[in-house]
Amino acid sequence: MVEITDMLGNRSITRQDGRKVDELRPVRITRHFTDAPEGSVLIECGNTRVMCTATFTPTVPRWRKDSGLGWVTAEYAMLPRATKERTDRESVKGRIGGRTHEISRLIGRCLRGVVDMKALGENQIQIDCDVLQADGGTRTASVTGAFVALVDAMRWAEANRHIKSADQVVTDYVSAVSVGVINGTPMLDLPYVEDSQAMTDMNVAMTGHGAFIELQGTAEHRPFTRAELGVLLDLAEKGNKELQAAQRAALALD
Amino acid sequence: MVEITDMLGNRSITRQDGRKVDELRPVRITRHFTDAPEGSVLIECGNTRVMCTATFTPTVPRWRKDSGLGWVTAEYAMLPRATKERTDRESVKGRIGGRTHEISRLIGRCLRGVVDMKALGENQIQIDCDVLQADGGTRTASVTGAFVALVDAMRWAEANRHIKSADQVVTDYVSAVSVGVINGTPMLDLPYVEDSQAMTDMNVAMTGHGAFIELQGTAEHRPFTRAELGVLLDLAEKGNKELQAAQRAALALD
Amino acid sequence: MVEITDMLGNRSITRQDGRKVDELRPVRITRHFTDAPEGSVLIECGNTRVMCTATFTPTVPRWRKDSGLGWVTAEYAMLPRATKERTDRESVKGRIGGRTHEISRLIGRCLRGVVDMKALGENQIQIDCDVLQADGGTRTASVTGAFVALVDAMRWAEANRHIKSADQVVTDYVSAVSVGVINGTPMLDLPYVEDSQAMTDMNVAMTGHGAFIELQGTAEHRPFTRAELGVLLDLAEKGNKELQAAQRAALALD
Amino acid sequence: MVEITDMLGNRSITRQDGRKVDELRPVRITRHFTDAPEGSVLIECGNTRVMCTATFTPTVPRWRKDSGLGWVTAEYAMLPRATKERTDRESVKGRIGGRTHEISRLIGRCLRGVVDMKALGENQIQIDCDVLQADGGTRTASVTGAFVALVDAMRWAEANRHIKSADQVVTDYVSAVSVGVINGTPMLDLPYVEDSQAMTDMNVAMTGHGAFIELQGTAEHRPFTRAELGVLLDLAEKGNKELQAAQRAALALD
Amino acid sequence: MVEITDMLGNRSITRQDGRKVDELRPVRITRHFTDAPEGSVLIECGNTRVMCTATFTPTVPRWRKDSGLGWVTAEYAMLPRATKERTDRESVKGRIGGRTHEISRLIGRCLRGVVDMKALGENQIQIDCDVLQADGGTRTASVTGAFVALVDAMRWAEANRHIKSADQVVTDYVSAVSVGVINGTPMLDLPYVEDSQAMTDMNVAMTGHGAFIELQGTAEHRPFTRAELGVLLDLAEKGNKELQAAQRAALALD
Amino acid sequence: MVEITDMLGNRSITRQDGRKVDELRPVRITRHFTDAPEGSVLIECGNTRVMCTATFTPTVPRWRKDSGLGWVTAEYAMLPRATKERTDRESVKGRIGGRTHEISRLIGRCLRGVVDMKALGENQIQIDCDVLQADGGTRTASVTGAFVALVDAMRWAEANRHIKSADQVVTDYVSAVSVGVINGTPMLDLPYVEDSQAMTDMNVAMTGHGAFIELQGTAEHRPFTRAELGVLLDLAEKGNKELQAAQRAALALD
Repeated sequence: MVEITDMLGNRSITRQDGRKVDELRPVRITRHFTDAPEGSVLIECGNTRVMCTATFTPTVPRWRKDSGLGWVTAEYAMLPRATKERTDRESVKGRIGGRTHEISRLIGRCLRGVVDMKALGENQIQIDCDVLQADGGTRTASVTGAFVALVDAMRWAEANRHIKSADQVVTDYVSAVSVGVINGTPMLDLPYVEDSQAMTDMNVAMTGHGAFIELQGTAEHRPFTRAELGVLLDLAEKGNKELQAAQRAALALD
Repeated sequence: MVEITDMLGNRSITRQDGRKVDELRPVRITRHFTDAPEGSVLIECGNTRVMCTATFTPTVPRWRKDSGLGWVTAEYAMLPRATKERTDRESVKGRIGGRTHEISRLIGRCLRGVVDMKALGENQIQIDCDVLQADGGTRTASVTGAFVALVDAMRWAEANRHIKSADQVVTDYVSAVSVGVINGTPMLDLPYVEDSQAMTDMNVAMTGHGAFIELQGTAEHRPFTRAELGVLLDLAEKGNKELQAAQRAALALD
Repeated sequence: MVEITDMLGNRSITRQDGRKVDELRPVRITRHFTDAPEGSVLIECGNTRVMCTATFTPTVPRWRKDSGLGWVTAEYAMLPRATKERTDRESVKGRIGGRTHEISRLIGRCLRGVVDMKALGENQIQIDCDVLQADGGTRTASVTGAFVALVDAMRWAEANRHIKSADQVVTDYVSAVSVGVINGTPMLDLPYVEDSQAMTDMNVAMTGHGAFIELQGTAEHRPFTRAELGVLLDLAEKGNKELQAAQRAALALD
Repeated sequence: MVEITDMLGNRSITRQDGRKVDELRPVRITRHFTDAPEGSVLIECGNTRVMCTATFTPTVPRWRKDSGLGWVTAEYAMLPRATKERTDRESVKGRIGGRTHEISRLIGRCLRGVVDMKALGENQIQIDCDVLQADGGTRTASVTGAFVALVDAMRWAEANRHIKSADQVVTDYVSAVSVGVINGTPMLDLPYVEDSQAMTDMNVAMTGHGAFIELQGTAEHRPFTRAELGVLLDLAEKGNKELQAAQRAALALD
Repeated sequence: MVEITDMLGNRSITRQDGRKVDELRPVRITRHFTDAPEGSVLIECGNTRVMCTATFTPTVPRWRKDSGLGWVTAEYAMLPRATKERTDRESVKGRIGGRTHEISRLIGRCLRGVVDMKALGENQIQIDCDVLQADGGTRTASVTGAFVALVDAMRWAEANRHIKSADQVVTDYVSAVSVGVINGTPMLDLPYVEDSQAMTDMNVAMTGHGAFIELQGTAEHRPFTRAELGVLLDLAEKGNKELQAAQRAALALD
Repeated sequence: MVEITDMLGNRSITRQDGRKVDELRPVRITRHFTDAPEGSVLIECGNTRVMCTATFTPTVPRWRKDSGLGWVTAEYAMLPRATKERTDRESVKGRIGGRTHEISRLIGRCLRGVVDMKALGENQIQIDCDVLQADGGTRTASVTGAFVALVDAMRWAEANRHIKSADQVVTDYVSAVSVGVINGTPMLDLPYVEDSQAMTDMNVAMTGHGAFIELQGTAEHRPFTRAELGVLLDLAEKGNKELQAAQRAALALD
């Protein structure tokens, strides 16, 4: 346990952007960012900006027909100049890359983790997360923003009598945050500059009750120990609680 | 000429959104919309919102090497929920549709029409126009917004000594606007609701000197006469002058 | 108006191939070029040769079902050695290029502009324009030739009682021609050598009544003025009248 | 041997189109069919019409560089309405089908079989065979026509001093013909109506010296015996001799 | 006939792997290689190893519906390191190559040649041949192995009452073997080292009754005479008889 | 801690296949499974069978040139009938699915996690994992098997003097195993039948020193608590130790 205490000791370190190791970047959630979608949210985590929309369709994919159950799916993409260097469009390349696939699937699983498919009925929600500006943590910002868009779409569906109750469909909050070990120090919510130095990198999606929905830790550059894992999960828990407070505040408006 | 006068007489008609037949929708041009690109502009024409970025690369495509000349190219895309109904991503479909190709090429030609390739030198500008919200006129808004992003990228290139002078590269203003005949009445700057009723539909890109760079008139639903063409061009000229005033105002800020 | 007179004055200029500025290349329209299609036409405009077929199908695409309306669509392609340099097949590249898309769409719109979809009923016409040899103006030759193939297919459909009357379906003639400004001189019907020098380039599709169906002017290399536009349209009108005479003559044979 | 005699006895049978069992359809070979390619041939075998072009490039694919050897390759395609029913373009489908691949490869192998790659030097010939009208035997007509285009391209290359001698490069004639067993009767040169009834179907490419370059027999519908094979090869030999006479006659003109 | 005798005289030659010219490589057929498929066979011909599975589906492709007939289709692929040099996956390249297409079609035709589609009823068999290790003759090994998998799938279908009788569906044996001329000597069953030297190369699929189903001879490198063809077919007949003995032995086990 | 003890109490439960909750399926690792690759391994974990090959290339991808560093990459695929129902080939579909992408990337990261890129030098290892039979845990079996293939390839490279020392390149063992919560009971190494019931599912890749390289927990069906996480990690640790013992035993043979 000594080791962990040491790592907590690092909390006094100040980061390049002035934050403490366990401090989130400023979060801003703008609902009704565009008019057409049933849910439309712009989420800003520091300089990372993602537009998240939720599309409600009163039908399900063929393989789900006559099951009485709904479905939630997600697609993630980056605009070409979200990044320092322009990335070619996947539409132009004619194929979707592995990273895009991986993140789209992650977002879908996170949201499905808090949706009661029976209460949703044979309706589908399609989430689209398009990164306008990328400064680290785009996948976790997508999950956090998409959740708010999902709730808005469910409220719309309730108002339009497609579902009985938005609260029954969405069974809990879900948000996600990145944590990582930079030069031996565990830190919360990594911007690009830190992310690219991180030896260990973990994305943690948690519910409002503090349980895990997704845990993705990668340590290509240096394996991490179980003790380090413990500290990283503490940081993630703190971060997710704060993100959920931001979600709650945004959803309280109207 | 009688016919034309009649058509001008229609100017007293009020449209669904309260505008006169020769009135533009409100235009808003936000420069430096995102941080990474050399030029980044959000243009809003009524409810149509397009994010236009200009990427500067100090190199040209292979076929252009050793020519001493630069190149300007453009790509256009719609986010899935820019529209009332969600459109599938072209990256997911694995191919770019005809409409996307057509518009991307149009934007590229318009901008090349006001760029001195020699003054640009062996550098490339890649324009990306991504429609966040679509309410008619997305291709013309893209041209108008992309021009501002192009100028910003050229100023950046001048400041970074990639080119001698932005003013030498960009030889004139260019903007574009749609005009069309709705129920026999020529109108300026059509929103979606009018566009879908239009029997004739024309996109007109003009320079600051009032000359044409692109003229694309389509009359699938009812051919148009030369007299009607005259009125439509009058409207387009008026519209483009006002759009260029907006561009000028935006570029005057710093 | 002085400027225009000047431009008309240029009519005395002789071109590389000996034509006057307002003279079409020799046009030859061969009907029943192949046996299988309902309409099959070889059109030759100078050295440009396009095979145009019209396929009649007594059904419509899904989105058109139960509308009582028909549909006309078109596809354009070049054989690999239609051109001086061999162009790779789009089937081999696995994707259709922007130019092909753009032209296919143009042809479809032009023909739909003279078809009464109600009179056509729930039947579809698929136009295929395959360029055997390219010497400029392949897209306009395609429109002009495809119109004749379309009429033949309609006559076939009338004879086979799929439609009541070919004349009711095809409401007017349509043809197309290119015009352009070469070294300051407006000219009609540009072969490749002129087309590649043109500073302004316009494709004009007109009906038998002299109205416009498509107008596509591009001035990447030098914007054109409204006065120039007037002269170009005069030339296009003259050209289209002559092309329609050729269509009429071909269709009068049996 | 009795069995074979019987089969030869069938030579008195008259076919739907009036031919004898060992009679070719009328062959017509038109050289210089289009202007741009180094070799351009229209071959007509009955109602089957294929446009064959040969493109000369003074370079070889990367894998062949610095070998001192040339290369010959071929691509085959059908225009959409070459057939009774329209076939979708492979460019539109985004992929080349198995049949197209198979035939393209066959044509390439047949021509390479009579080309001396050393004499060709580091130059490439690309053969394009595009079927304008299909009535059976399109792949064999392609081989026969492509050979003539190849010779023309070699003569062009000799005249333009890319190669020393066309005769040294092309070491022999090559032509191909189909044979098959229809209702138990072996027949030469099958049109579509016979081809679709054939129980056995064989394509035979032979040199001017009567040796085989390709032999492709398929008997999905009824296996064939060695005796039948003998008769089919006799027919193919006769057919190929006559096709080579037609090639020789066409190449003798100038 | 002298020439043939000479060629037979070559039978005393010993090959690199110690075989006689008319000797097969050791064949091993392992049934029930994996558990899931209705038929699953590993065939080993020398160092060539192919996994062949047969999938039974109680339905047919759409174009075959209500015909009362079944269908058999096949797909062939190589694992990336089946070969000395790694070959890129066709899934990664996004397209299937010509060779793969050609072989898949060959396997399908061979098996359909011994299947009574009426007895099969409206059921489909999908054959998958995946090459684990390639040392020449992968396509012929695929045919030979796939036949055994097909019989196993038919026995399964009989046991599960999808068809009346496996014996009625599979009307005869089918196997395939390669033959070729190496340095003037005809040889049976070529491993990679011989195959790459072969001037003539032939794949011969034969039924249990000694008739041909497929005959594919290629002589890109040196045309072959009819006398040579005779010797090659003798070798192929001998090889196929022995392969069918191996199939019979494998199928006799249970 | 009480809760964990309870969960450990579940260890007395017997599973469908007779295993205890913390018991691995039988593991079999066959080296030199095929001849061509530098490393070729068949790994069997219960009924799951994966063929893993490692290809050594004395060069690196372009983006890695002149860095002095090597690269390791991986591709995963399933044969069509690895599963109960046949899955269409991704080569035929023309695109790689999200799941395939996700797993390929996971395998690559795991192996890179134990490779010293400097010691590898500018050489590349391409790992191919092809699932012959799938019964749960194919991705973890792939990691475990691929490690052995990687070591064999490094030994080959050392013997062939491409690298100095295999031991310097491969810095530690790595294996992976799945764990999950089935009906509230945490279990080790899930076969398909358990995997499909699992509410929580985690893949854990660990080094020989017991540190984590990848941790991927998904709880679409029921979020998991931190206490549950602890038990799952205990199980994974036990499983990975045993898998590494199997790797060690296999690598000790020669």
